[in-house]
Amino acid sequence: MAVTTATIQPDAPYERVGVPTLGFRNYWYPVLAARRLGRRPRAITIMGEQIVLFRDRGKIHALEDRCPHRGVRLSAGACKFPGSGTISCAYHGWTFRGADGSLAAALMEGPNAPIVRKIRVQPYAVTERAGLIWLFVGDMDAVPLEDDLPDWIHDRDRFFQITYAVDYRCNWRAIVDNWTNDHHAAFVHGYSPELIFQPHLPFAQTLEPQVLADGGGMKFPGRDGMRSAEFPELGRYPRRTWHRFMKPTGRGASRDLLSEKARDIYKMKDPYQTRLPGLILIGRPHGEYTLVQWAVPLDAGTTRLFNINCFRRHGWLRGLYDRMHYALWRRWVHDVVFSGQDKRILEQLIPGEERLSRTDIGVIAWRKFAGGNARKRDEGATRLRAAGD
Amino acid sequence: MAVTTATIQPDAPYERVGVPTLGFRNYWYPVLAARRLGRRPRAITIMGEQIVLFRDRGKIHALEDRCPHRGVRLSAGACKFPGSGTISCAYHGWTFRGADGSLAAALMEGPNAPIVRKIRVQPYAVTERAGLIWLFVGDMDAVPLEDDLPDWIHDRDRFFQITYAVDYRCNWRAIVDNWTNDHHAAFVHGYSPELIFQPHLPFAQTLEPQVLADGGGMKFPGRDGMRSAEFPELGRYPRRTWHRFMKPTGRGASRDLLSEKARDIYKMKDPYQTRLPGLILIGRPHGEYTLVQWAVPLDAGTTRLFNINCFRRHGWLRGLYDRMHYALWRRWVHDVVFSGQDKRILEQLIPGEERLSRTDIGVIAWRKFAGGNARKRDEGATRLRAAGD
Amino acid sequence: MAVTTATIQPDAPYERVGVPTLGFRNYWYPVLAARRLGRRPRAITIMGEQIVLFRDRGKIHALEDRCPHRGVRLSAGACKFPGSGTISCAYHGWTFRGADGSLAAALMEGPNAPIVRKIRVQPYAVTERAGLIWLFVGDMDAVPLEDDLPDWIHDRDRFFQITYAVDYRCNWRAIVDNWTNDHHAAFVHGYSPELIFQPHLPFAQTLEPQVLADGGGMKFPGRDGMRSAEFPELGRYPRRTWHRFMKPTGRGASRDLLSEKARDIYKMKDPYQTRLPGLILIGRPHGEYTLVQWAVPLDAGTTRLFNINCFRRHGWLRGLYDRMHYALWRRWVHDVVFSGQDKRILEQLIPGEERLSRTDIGVIAWRKFAGGNARKRDEGATRLRAAGD
Repeated sequence: MAVTTATIQPDAPYERVGVPTLGFRNYWYPVLAARRLGRRPRAITIMGEQIVLFRDRGKIHALEDRCPHRGVRLSAGACKFPGSGTISCAYHGWTFRGADGSLAAALMEGPNAPIVRKIRVQPYAVTERAGLIWLFVGDMDAVPLEDDLPDWIHDRDRFFQITYAVDYRCNWRAIVDNWTNDHHAAFVHGYSPELIFQPHLPFAQTLEPQVLADGGGMKFPGRDGMRSAEFPELGRYPRRTWHRFMKPTGRGASRDLLSEKARDIYKMKDPYQTRLPGLILIGRPHGEYTLVQWAVPLDAGTTRLFNINCFRRHGWLRGLYDRMHYALWRRWVHDVVFSGQDKRILEQLIPGEERLSRTDIGVIAWRKFAGGNARKRDEGATRLRAAGD
Repeated sequence: MAVTTATIQPDAPYERVGVPTLGFRNYWYPVLAARRLGRRPRAITIMGEQIVLFRDRGKIHALEDRCPHRGVRLSAGACKFPGSGTISCAYHGWTFRGADGSLAAALMEGPNAPIVRKIRVQPYAVTERAGLIWLFVGDMDAVPLEDDLPDWIHDRDRFFQITYAVDYRCNWRAIVDNWTNDHHAAFVHGYSPELIFQPHLPFAQTLEPQVLADGGGMKFPGRDGMRSAEFPELGRYPRRTWHRFMKPTGRGASRDLLSEKARDIYKMKDPYQTRLPGLILIGRPHGEYTLVQWAVPLDAGTTRLFNINCFRRHGWLRGLYDRMHYALWRRWVHDVVFSGQDKRILEQLIPGEERLSRTDIGVIAWRKFAGGNARKRDEGATRLRAAGD
Repeated sequence: MAVTTATIQPDAPYERVGVPTLGFRNYWYPVLAARRLGRRPRAITIMGEQIVLFRDRGKIHALEDRCPHRGVRLSAGACKFPGSGTISCAYHGWTFRGADGSLAAALMEGPNAPIVRKIRVQPYAVTERAGLIWLFVGDMDAVPLEDDLPDWIHDRDRFFQITYAVDYRCNWRAIVDNWTNDHHAAFVHGYSPELIFQPHLPFAQTLEPQVLADGGGMKFPGRDGMRSAEFPELGRYPRRTWHRFMKPTGRGASRDLLSEKARDIYKMKDPYQTRLPGLILIGRPHGEYTLVQWAVPLDAGTTRLFNINCFRRHGWLRGLYDRMHYALWRRWVHDVVFSGQDKRILEQLIPGEERLSRTDIGVIAWRKFAGGNARKRDEGATRLRAAGD
């Protein structure tokens, strides 16, 4: 019998283990390149919530994007009183403090209107770091930004970052599942320009998912496996090509290596870390470069992927080289082409029931870990102002 | 806690007082510029109903836009028998009388087919006046057009009209709420080119909504109030500008004036009238010019706003001047720019719960008045043909 | 009272007699021009089902378009093992046999993975004929293609075909209803260039719908009727035109003729046959040319109409003439203009209640016949592999 829609419950595989459609709340997320927020307020949607970002004398604020008076989006308004940290609704000038969402004035009622003390919109903890605007969406006071940021984004003295963002037309969970060493890489990226002179990535490995020592994520080391096999009825996979006879170097050779240098510099025991709420750290053993990919749920069917390329500071000349190398080569070869191979597939995914198998041990372990260990609301706390900045 | 969709009931503030999503039935509404209906029938949607308009030898008819035979839109058909006042369905030539919607012939069955006496589509009272097509949508016989038309649209001997129509992507109720002296004007239009050399409009007035003497609408006079104020923590609003030191003239000065001349010419005691089913009359004290704005619900999220500019006839030279003045200046400065300031905001409105306050006394009074006083179906009458023309 | 949406049940007239929204299952349907399926798999939707078509070394296969592993569309994949008749999912290389939908390998798990024996996707019987790809969508084993194909498509030795396909934005049932001699032709096509020098088609005929001798469809002969009439209040229809004084020839004259020659060549007693699951055969008495129009439901609101023009083989010179005549004249005059007149109307049809009448005797008879006689699932059989090719 043919598949019928009735048998498909798109969220079923995730709901069983508590991984929500719109993302884990109570975490900091990157939401926008800081340079894209100028003098005009800007509407964003994150985790299904509509939020206005505005910048007054450099400082960024984030509020719920609806004036409670007559319902107009605050993002249609403006900062009418520069320096006061407020935004005024475009309709009747209700003016809200960015700091806590409280109403500073209902302009058209004149000063000291009684309504002022009774009104508040939802504020969001927001801050700027590494050229990005970071937002805390949740049901509790914001945690310190440092709790959620890897050192090489947080530590501005030792690292600088270049970010490339792209929107995926899929749910965020499909992207994070893709980061659990589910063996898609050997297949999807087998002929990627980035890996073409490296040995084919291994597959059919035995996976041993482990929770990271800090409890904030998992690693998915694999052992054994094969780089080529003969399949009955089909033949050999992958097909031999001239460029596969090169000496193994690079990622293919280094996948399981944990160099001393990397540990020293990054304090990162594990070069591949998939972390809550939904990001992956991809380290390089030589320790000069790290890629952080962050999947940010905008709505149920759209995810913004931030590729945050982190470089170690080595003086201006090396910095210049790193920037040019990224601009001329790495952005194209990884952020566009390599990640584009994943994007194409993830956008063709029809959510529903799955038939998971041995290569999905990482997927299964991750979902269970994430659903069970994501930060929960501090039930005792009431939501006030976050300590983001 | 953040706003959740569950707490938002978009229609709630209106349903409580009986103001319907698709507009008040049993009124005449303008629906189209008459010059836009030529030889081809034309489909329109008004108050969610799909209607075909057609013109046969000058006379306009309006019927339900679906042939009951096999369901094809009558607007795909044509007037096959000019002069008969009928429209023929494009599929099998079922031919309906525009006058009452009855079936005149089922062409492909030959003359005198038995089905003819059994079929009728819904007719609508329709007529042409002031360059516009007017339609009566309701559950009762149409009232005389004059009952619903202000004199300066109705009285062709003394006034002529120029109309500018624009579709708003919002519900009609938001537009009419905007006409209740809710003090948005002083904020939204404060720097409008139309008012730039006038004093800032007053705000924080004490509002005294009153039902008009004829019972067909309300006026919202305000008294006292201020034109500028110092707000704690924020500073002065509005900021002083050089052009505000001009001597008060024009609308700013005249808002509360009721000149004898206006009363004489217009028989209009009140220069601002918000009337059922959803229009505003904006008179000028000198009595030469009046703007009627009419909010016509097309569907729940689209409203057609007719700006009907009415001029007193003073001979051809003055008429020419008025037309040129409108074409070169007033259309741009008011119908495009000034109204555009409202349009931009109303299209950014997210319907739902509100927190009404002192400046919304007019809004509250209007909704209650409109819900309670809109024309009701004459329960004893059956719907036949309207007396529109 | 005006029509309200509550009274409209779009499917009501069809549901009563068992004619399904998405088409009759268990028939062969044309789905795509064969030349449009190249080396890349292709996604199609037919009868609401999403299917991947792929071609390996010439042979075409069709499978359900979703990999059961992680849900990615198989149409995003590729034939990684040419000659094996398989398609590999783009994500992890799960490789399915086109022949029966069974899993041949889960590449990334290595050879002989245990999951292989447990997985199958829905296969569809598919084959190529007359330049078209034919698909059997159903709940039973496919019948032989010949059972569903008219001879002049099936018999490649005696006929060749030229196909022109176009998508209609309407339900398939409206198109087939249009083929029941419901007298629309005399009205809709009255001034079609194809018929302009022929007498006006007759209308107001007495219809005598009959089931075809082979039980696979119906014919709708009419007798008597008129070519012109005087309608009270309206006048004469159709209006006289100079070109109507020509001697009756062509379709108008031949509608009820059954020439001996046609019977001999086509073994077709009836030049107009409306057949299950939803096609019409339009023969010409001289027997050289036949048009098959096939309405293929893609989804509830989209239908692909295949115009399969079938020509008798008479050697290369006559074949060349037929192709040029089609390319230069007949495609335009019939497939584009004549059928376009129907298309324009059918796309303006609002499904719902109908008021059927005498001219709809064919419509009523067809729906009842089709709902009652369409091929039913062979309840005893389990769906395996079809015998399509």
